[in-house]
Amino acid sequence: MDRNSANENRTPVTVLGLGPMGQALAGAFLKAGHPTTVWNRTLAKADALVAQGATLASTVVDAVTASPLVIICVLDYNAANAILAPVGEALKGRTLVNLTADTPERAREMAAWAAARGIDYLDGAIMTPTPTIGQPTAVVLYSGPEAVYEANRPVLASLGGTAAHLGADPGRAAAFDVALLDIFWTSMSGYVHALALARAENIAAKDLAVYAQGIVHIMPDIMTEFARHVDDGHYPGEKSNIVSAAAGMEHIIHAAEARGIDAGVLSAAHAVARRAIDAGQGTNGFSLLAELYGKPSA
Amino acid sequence: MDRNSANENRTPVTVLGLGPMGQALAGAFLKAGHPTTVWNRTLAKADALVAQGATLASTVVDAVTASPLVIICVLDYNAANAILAPVGEALKGRTLVNLTADTPERAREMAAWAAARGIDYLDGAIMTPTPTIGQPTAVVLYSGPEAVYEANRPVLASLGGTAAHLGADPGRAAAFDVALLDIFWTSMSGYVHALALARAENIAAKDLAVYAQGIVHIMPDIMTEFARHVDDGHYPGEKSNIVSAAAGMEHIIHAAEARGIDAGVLSAAHAVARRAIDAGQGTNGFSLLAELYGKPSA
Ligand SMILES: NC(=O)c1ccc[n+]([C@@H]2O[C@H](COP(=O)([O-])OP(=O)(O)OC[C@H]3O[C@@H](n4cnc5c(N)ncnc54)[C@H](OP(=O)(O)O)[C@@H]3O)[C@@H](O)[C@H]2O)c1
Ligand SMILES: NC(=O)c1ccc[n+]([C@@H]2O[C@H](COP(=O)([O-])OP(=O)(O)OC[C@H]3O[C@@H](n4cnc5c(N)ncnc54)[C@H](OP(=O)(O)O)[C@@H]3O)[C@@H](O)[C@H]2O)c1
Repeated sequence: MDRNSANENRTPVTVLGLGPMGQALAGAFLKAGHPTTVWNRTLAKADALVAQGATLASTVVDAVTASPLVIICVLDYNAANAILAPVGEALKGRTLVNLTADTPERAREMAAWAAARGIDYLDGAIMTPTPTIGQPTAVVLYSGPEAVYEANRPVLASLGGTAAHLGADPGRAAAFDVALLDIFWTSMSGYVHALALARAENIAAKDLAVYAQGIVHIMPDIMTEFARHVDDGHYPGEKSNIVSAAAGMEHIIHAAEARGIDAGVLSAAHAVARRAIDAGQGTNGFSLLAELYGKPSA
Repeated sequence: MDRNSANENRTPVTVLGLGPMGQALAGAFLKAGHPTTVWNRTLAKADALVAQGATLASTVVDAVTASPLVIICVLDYNAANAILAPVGEALKGRTLVNLTADTPERAREMAAWAAARGIDYLDGAIMTPTPTIGQPTAVVLYSGPEAVYEANRPVLASLGGTAAHLGADPGRAAAFDVALLDIFWTSMSGYVHALALARAENIAAKDLAVYAQGIVHIMPDIMTEFARHVDDGHYPGEKSNIVSAAAGMEHIIHAAEARGIDAGVLSAAHAVARRAIDAGQGTNGFSLLAELYGKPSA
């Protein structure tokens, strides 16, 4: 370890919010040797971290003034705003990194709020689950002023894995985040729905999971292909088209409804495929729907 | 190659239906050395296969009587029924393998139809895209009488990859198929929706795709975990719970709607999470929703 990184390793850090993710973040800073101050609305959630060497601040203002770098990671921006509003003055001259997930709009609003108070602000989005934090598999996206990112990069590196600075627009990380979480939560909704369907046919979840992982393995190549279609504005349907996809969706909807299983998610997806077919676009590839989702329905 | 497999390699095969998948299947049988007869409603789709050595039958009955093993792979069971209904007699004593996707109900109906006519019947489901057929990455699931599967296994092995016989119930492969396609089409709907969201923020599809693949990489472990929760009937929410998931979904819905992008798919998923929260189950893990999907809403 060179002198510089040894030095960086002593940068004090404050973590506001000790849900599962806040706890993972604080744990990673501690493990990397940073004096770590923590605060949470429900103070008891700090117990395990205090046992590992964290300092518990009993008020937000105490927490914020303990470190030049303050991380916040809570449920949403309503919670973040409620916590930060009273400490705008105390944050002046410090760096605030908001790792709470929300929309690009809200990230930009908070950046403006911070700028007006002389607070250096980065917005971030954590793309991997809590066990990855501090590990090589973590992925964290940041946006905001390049200089602020560079100054804090060595400390933020304690969170592990891949960090990427996506640009100066503070909403950029959140823009990626909403799109990526869209994939995640929609896919996970499909998975729990599939588990419900499987259960109705007496298929053990663990037996389905094996094949479900096989389905997941075919997705990355298809994603690359669909992305090329969207960037080119050209949606070839030779290998599989929207009519065929819609037929597949209908089987699933019928199978679900015949078993009393809510099919609202796939029915909504099917409706968009149906719009494409009704517009005479059914022989295009499924990737065309990326265009249709952005257009109001008739 | 031993004598037996050399022999198997001469078993004639008929393929009914030459959409992208039917063409891939017929191409794989030809490549494995099987005399291959093909038929399609639109005969011109056989041209490339005929150039590779396939025999084009001009009627379904000619196609069916050319081989002891007949594969059908068309849009859906309505199409399959329309093709097969007039040739029930001609199929007597032959093996029919239906690789068309549909519901377990329809697979069972077709098995009963075949049994009444002295046709050996297997129902199958192809879990991977056309380029995998004949390659190590193909995955094909079968169900129906074990003996019929075993007798045809060497020929069906021409399709490549992993084949699995899931049991004697002819609806079993379709039961896995609908559940797995549920994951696939729901996830792909999430992905094209995410591409629409990204586009609205001037994020190139190829830039999102890189991170989207990262999201896909975290899914297999989560799937194993959720499957364990469902099999155990116990849904821990310590690492991430339904309230947090619902908050994440709300950001995505807000971000989509603010950009005029249809949020029907995720709104339907969110409504189910909301039901869990309203029922006081929000601190459970997201996997609990597998139970809720199967229960009528209040
Ligand atoms: N968990 C993951 O795997 C994961 C992965 C990637 C990103 N994230 C993101 O990380 C963020 C935090 O998630 P999480 O998993 O730690 O759990 P969470 O359930 O989303 O957030 C819990 C935290 O928010 C606080 N909170 C909620 N409402 C509050 C309010 N009105 N005022 C003050 N504090 C409030 C909680 O305080 P109390 O303890 O007092 O309730 C707790 O600190 C979210 O934006 C989430 O999307 C999480
Ligand atoms: N493509 C894939 O990547 C893939 C992957 C896994 C499973 N599958 C499954 O494989 C099956 C076939 O899919 P596919 O991709 O080949 O294309 P498809 O578009 O689903 O099916 C096209 C085939 O169905 C025929 N067809 C449609 N309606 C018909 C009717 N009323 N009467 C007679 N024939 C009719 C077409 O004949 P014409 O040529 O005359 O229109 C053509 O042979 C589907 O069940 C699909 O879910 C496909």
